[in-house]
Amino acid sequence: MGHLESISTPRDLRGLSADELEQLAAEIRDVLVGVCSRTGGHLGPNLGVVELTMAIHRVFDSPRDRVVFDTGHQAYVHKMLTGRAGEFGGLRTEGGLSGYPSQAESEHDIVENSHASTALSYADGLAKAYAIRREDRHVVAVIGDGALTGGMAWEALNNIAIAKASRLVIVVNDNGRSYTPTIGGLATALTSLRTNPRYEAVLEQVKRRLNAVPAVGPAAYDALHAVKKGMKDALAPQGLFEDLGLKYVGPVDGHDLAAMEQALGRAKRFGGPVIVHAMTRKGFGYDAAERHEADQFHAPGPFDVETGEESPKGRIWTDVFADEIVHLGEQRKDLVAITAAMMHPVGLDQFAERFPERTFDVGIAEQHAATSAAGLALGGLHPVVAVYATFLNRAFDQVLMDVALHRCGVTFVLDRSGVTGDDGASHNGMWDMSVLQVVPGLRIAAPRDATRLRELLGEAVAVDDAPTVVRFPKGPPPADIEPHSRAGGMDVLARSGPKDVLVVAVGAMATTAVDVAGRLEAQGIGVTVVDPRWVKPVDPALVDLARDHRLVVSIEDNGVVGGCGAVLLQTLNDAGVSTPVRLHGIPQEFLGHAKRAAILERIGLAPQSLARGIVEDITAVGDGQALVDVDRAH
Amino acid sequence: MGHLESISTPRDLRGLSADELEQLAAEIRDVLVGVCSRTGGHLGPNLGVVELTMAIHRVFDSPRDRVVFDTGHQAYVHKMLTGRAGEFGGLRTEGGLSGYPSQAESEHDIVENSHASTALSYADGLAKAYAIRREDRHVVAVIGDGALTGGMAWEALNNIAIAKASRLVIVVNDNGRSYTPTIGGLATALTSLRTNPRYEAVLEQVKRRLNAVPAVGPAAYDALHAVKKGMKDALAPQGLFEDLGLKYVGPVDGHDLAAMEQALGRAKRFGGPVIVHAMTRKGFGYDAAERHEADQFHAPGPFDVETGEESPKGRIWTDVFADEIVHLGEQRKDLVAITAAMMHPVGLDQFAERFPERTFDVGIAEQHAATSAAGLALGGLHPVVAVYATFLNRAFDQVLMDVALHRCGVTFVLDRSGVTGDDGASHNGMWDMSVLQVVPGLRIAAPRDATRLRELLGEAVAVDDAPTVVRFPKGPPPADIEPHSRAGGMDVLARSGPKDVLVVAVGAMATTAVDVAGRLEAQGIGVTVVDPRWVKPVDPALVDLARDHRLVVSIEDNGVVGGCGAVLLQTLNDAGVSTPVRLHGIPQEFLGHAKRAAILERIGLAPQSLARGIVEDITAVGDGQALVDVDRAH
Repeated sequence: MGHLESISTPRDLRGLSADELEQLAAEIRDVLVGVCSRTGGHLGPNLGVVELTMAIHRVFDSPRDRVVFDTGHQAYVHKMLTGRAGEFGGLRTEGGLSGYPSQAESEHDIVENSHASTALSYADGLAKAYAIRREDRHVVAVIGDGALTGGMAWEALNNIAIAKASRLVIVVNDNGRSYTPTIGGLATALTSLRTNPRYEAVLEQVKRRLNAVPAVGPAAYDALHAVKKGMKDALAPQGLFEDLGLKYVGPVDGHDLAAMEQALGRAKRFGGPVIVHAMTRKGFGYDAAERHEADQFHAPGPFDVETGEESPKGRIWTDVFADEIVHLGEQRKDLVAITAAMMHPVGLDQFAERFPERTFDVGIAEQHAATSAAGLALGGLHPVVAVYATFLNRAFDQVLMDVALHRCGVTFVLDRSGVTGDDGASHNGMWDMSVLQVVPGLRIAAPRDATRLRELLGEAVAVDDAPTVVRFPKGPPPADIEPHSRAGGMDVLARSGPKDVLVVAVGAMATTAVDVAGRLEAQGIGVTVVDPRWVKPVDPALVDLARDHRLVVSIEDNGVVGGCGAVLLQTLNDAGVSTPVRLHGIPQEFLGHAKRAAILERIGLAPQSLARGIVEDITAVGDGQALVDVDRAH
Repeated sequence: MGHLESISTPRDLRGLSADELEQLAAEIRDVLVGVCSRTGGHLGPNLGVVELTMAIHRVFDSPRDRVVFDTGHQAYVHKMLTGRAGEFGGLRTEGGLSGYPSQAESEHDIVENSHASTALSYADGLAKAYAIRREDRHVVAVIGDGALTGGMAWEALNNIAIAKASRLVIVVNDNGRSYTPTIGGLATALTSLRTNPRYEAVLEQVKRRLNAVPAVGPAAYDALHAVKKGMKDALAPQGLFEDLGLKYVGPVDGHDLAAMEQALGRAKRFGGPVIVHAMTRKGFGYDAAERHEADQFHAPGPFDVETGEESPKGRIWTDVFADEIVHLGEQRKDLVAITAAMMHPVGLDQFAERFPERTFDVGIAEQHAATSAAGLALGGLHPVVAVYATFLNRAFDQVLMDVALHRCGVTFVLDRSGVTGDDGASHNGMWDMSVLQVVPGLRIAAPRDATRLRELLGEAVAVDDAPTVVRFPKGPPPADIEPHSRAGGMDVLARSGPKDVLVVAVGAMATTAVDVAGRLEAQGIGVTVVDPRWVKPVDPALVDLARDHRLVVSIEDNGVVGGCGAVLLQTLNDAGVSTPVRLHGIPQEFLGHAKRAAILERIGLAPQSLARGIVEDITAVGDGQALVDVDRAH
């Protein structure tokens, strides 16, 4: 680690020679590959931005100048160059470096959220603030071509184009990929540029020929200008930016440090908003990643550095969905599937292979995913929109107004719901079962295991006059739990002794609930465990069950405010059921990164602490005391 | 009403001569002006689309072909041409025609939602569905230039550009305005087109000159092609669409029926997605509207047809905000204001006039409004984002992840919250106090009157480390209610007799609550009325008050599921307070259009029915009975 060791601030980059910088880039790649092979992480994207990040930190002066990374997972190199190389081995571990920028880690980090397409809006605001405050600072936003497919990026570009006073440099990191290849008209335009590197040569040739023509009257200048612009357009897409009035520099080889520095220097001197279009390769410099066809090692788990072989993974929830949706697609010709640039991660790749004409990758565009699904439904099909739970928030208004108001039969499949862990605050899927409660007519299913996922997915796609949601967590599904009996549309999973405690187990928390039930039974407490399967609307049979018990306990992997337990409480209150209710869910706060199990333990959703709390509560009920949540009461 | 009477379906348009069509257009304008002068409504936009709508219905075959209007308020002419001319007098009245398309009204209507920028996504889905089902139908989407500034429209265009099989015609209704003039790079580009009608002439001239040049080798064809494209780009913005790979027809004079029909005919025959760029004038054909500088009578209330004078309006909540924000802006130089294309309707016009460099109109772009506000806050300013409550849903993810996660001091001012009435389901602001409950750190204030709006706005902008929300309804504020005393941070508005009923009055429902209290007192029931002022987080003093009473009643102008009452119930439950709680709010359903007062009456939020219910409930509590909500219990 010769040179990297010597970099404690970005300014240390300035003293290095060209050779030393090249060596540094190689060192950085070694560290990236070495650490990610052990901890997993966003390897491919970071291999692609080594020189680009170095160039930014040589040309600009962070933290005086601000660098904003869109989807912060491309900030590993930035972390190493801003004094955190020594800590990089602890990436994505509890107490170690976050996998995203973090204000707590460094004054060089500013945006922590890793939902895509936000950087330009942040940067627009920052640059305007500095202009108003007359501070001489530049703002650099790094955004991928994939993130440009998101609507927010367009909204921002439209505004940045008229913000003449903003010292704002937008670096488009164009590797032709979101997670998988970028789609849409924008991608086509960018591709046409990449495949035509001879633009300058051709333009020169045409100019020479035109100049040889005798004077052509007043249109001469215009014609020449038109040829210049036109030829650019024939070969390049910057018309798209230039039409908006945005200054454009590029394309630049993003792996040529000197060229990148030159382009960024020009952009910096311009003094207004500029786009620098850098061409990069995801996985650059590590053979196994470059060769990896599916996603250039976008975010592998631990792997073997020599062979690039990932450690074998078990079957996860996504795999169960992936198989079942193909099965359903065979039965129903009207089933279509939509992904927002995450075909493989959400498990739609097999469906896409089998039914290519019935599969749509819409780009990083959750809003369009939802509303085009409404259109598909109005056109007589049944769309299944598969998306990470946290990203559905992007389309809340569309789910409410475009899908639900029009009673469209659209099924939203929410992967990575609940506590996800390693990726930190912006990736936990802890919001969906609260905010979706307000949507009239929408139904939510939370399967507890693989068998229930298949079953509930089938029930969901059978609903053609209202939106349905099926949500499940990250990782492997637990062992199947067969029902003891049914109550209404619900599964009773355990029933023993007197009717002391009714445990309402939402989704994958059923496994925990059954564990808890065993502990309570061992102490002579009667328990019923029920899995509602459909948590919205509340099953009338659940109200009856609650009335028959002495204590109702809900356990859910979702924010406790306004979640399933809260709505159950409200329903029981409306129905005049006075059985005490105790809600267990995720505390309503942004959770730092750590392993899922460690987080569940910390927030009191592990079996032991749940059982302990329930024993206290049922004892208090027996004594006729009021239940008080010591953590929450004032 | 000679010709209009004869139009019962769009097919009846086909038999009319050019003269008759011109007379029909005049008749339609007369009806538009006449009806809107009595009922109010979106006059300006509809005057601008008379010929455009006639042309669509002559060229296409609705309802076989589907017509989707972005922001359905421009569908009045469509309504008249699809069999509803006779009912048009009852526009926007209860039981009469909706001000937006309505599936219940007509098979010619499909999209009811009137949030902007959705039409292209719907149309993309519909056209893909028809392609998959091999149905020979066209889809026509009508979208304004203003709505193109919304990110959803970009997401849709990016997808439509590669949907080669879609029979989709996008009519860009370019009048240069959202509510007020359209802003941003897109607007600049469109303007440059509008001011250069001589494009074809210039192109011809250049082509002739180039053809006169001797053969210039292999680059000849390319050069010519480049000139053609380049000259178009020098004068026109369609490069923006063409770069995406979208076929473009235009610009066309949107008030020239024959030209519009010709353009639409070409687009229809093309067989793939096409943009038809129509230039129109908002308010066209009615002098008073065309002369109206602010917004060409975008959506006036009742007015005098001869003079164009609107009936005088009283002072509304928005006016109070408008004055106060200027006042605050004078005190704090770091205060900046943001609107999403609604400068006047949200009351920022005075602020913009006074502090132009501190005011940003971002276009119809709520996502960018929120995240650029986060950027402004990170840059050291305090942004105030003023928006209709229903439109904040567009930015839910941004409020959560971009503002709250980063602890940015941004104040969101939600106008038109609660039941708005005339505009129907998609304009009621009944979601905010539920979905925002999940946002960690965010605080919500609900002022009960003008004095409290000024007071709470001041408190909100003083919070610089967390998002704040101030929400108030449509229309005039009620008379000020001075507090009887304080409890914690709350105002006690009434206190009499024994501590029977605690009424928690949220925001403008305080007036109703005080009325209710009078009715209860008259029956010998002791009442306390408290206005929490800040409804999130729950004031600890409210928990204590609840403990001291026999019944807690919450009244809010927000959806009852997960709203302020529900969170209070949850808080009391956690705190072990066993006082029975009864929640009164808007039922969780999509409300049809009617006057606000009529809706409040129907949903049980009028004083008389509230008082009746509370008397029953307190009596039941006295008898030791459980409270049961008869409407909701199973």
